[in-house]
Amino acid sequence: MDNLKVTNKQLNRLSVENFKSSEKTDIYIILDQLRSGNNIGSIFRTSDAFRIKKIYITGTSALPPNKEILKTALGSTETVDWEHAKNALDLMQNLKHLGVAIYAIEQVTGSISLQDFEWNGTNPIAIILGNEVEGVSQELINASDGCLEIPQFGMKHSLNVAVSSGIVLWHLLNQMLNRKN
Amino acid sequence: MDNLKVTNKQLNRLSVENFKSSEKTDIYIILDQLRSGNNIGSIFRTSDAFRIKKIYITGTSALPPNKEILKTALGSTETVDWEHAKNALDLMQNLKHLGVAIYAIEQVTGSISLQDFEWNGTNPIAIILGNEVEGVSQELINASDGCLEIPQFGMKHSLNVAVSSGIVLWHLLNQMLNRKN
Repeated sequence: MDNLKVTNKQLNRLSVENFKSSEKTDIYIILDQLRSGNNIGSIFRTSDAFRIKKIYITGTSALPPNKEILKTALGSTETVDWEHAKNALDLMQNLKHLGVAIYAIEQVTGSISLQDFEWNGTNPIAIILGNEVEGVSQELINASDGCLEIPQFGMKHSLNVAVSSGIVLWHLLNQMLNRKN
Repeated sequence: MDNLKVTNKQLNRLSVENFKSSEKTDIYIILDQLRSGNNIGSIFRTSDAFRIKKIYITGTSALPPNKEILKTALGSTETVDWEHAKNALDLMQNLKHLGVAIYAIEQVTGSISLQDFEWNGTNPIAIILGNEVEGVSQELINASDGCLEIPQFGMKHSLNVAVSSGIVLWHLLNQMLNRKN
């Protein structure tokens, strides 16, 4: 093995300014009624890495700067575009007018199992993540274009919401990267 | 939209006993020198959902039952097989003798970018996740069969270790599910 660890300097990190002005994915995230700042911060961190276009925080979720969010976001609340939208349904309406397809991440009848979901990497897409206990509300599910479900074969039938978002975002990014090559 | 939310009862959860005796994936996880019980617990939770064969906890990481681990594992330390192995290198040697291919999840020169990594879903495979700050040690990287790198395009060049494990595990499971169909 000649795999040598790479220092942060070698990773050639972008400055905040360059990152903000550079190309992003056409992926939006809607966080509705999340209760844990730790989870929100972790989702910001993943969104920085995967160049998510924008995070919308809706409902009564905590907002940056919040101590818990900042702790797990590790600075990514400064690099990822985000906005607080009071009403999630109004936001969804606006995004739809802009041609964004919206999918709730939830376990529901008639959902699309994630391994069957294909994205072309260019049509704008939004994913909704809901409360840690209640999940995405039925109201938002009804207003979505569809639901994506991460198949689960265990005893618990639940994943942490930050882990779930990482999985779905990677699923999309993986397809984008494979089509670009 | 006629996506209706599914209750836990409808999800038809397996009992602890049934789950332990049922078929699992051929995926092992090695957690070396993780410092956060929250992260370890979250990885247990994902491992329950994805039917990971076994988690090895090596080095000085916290072990179940630990308050932080139990908080985020939500009972999955009872359903996922796990073992404490004092010496990670000895463990890797043993797994290799059993025909397990071992990949460190790390940003290194010569790594395989995750979108290029294909798994046939049946050959046993282990992934190593390392310390939250230091990553996987050079010693374990040298003893691995290769390194997998989650491509990152942001300013921070780092992902939470529980999120990283979810991403890599889904990448493997997705390929397994698509080959089985």
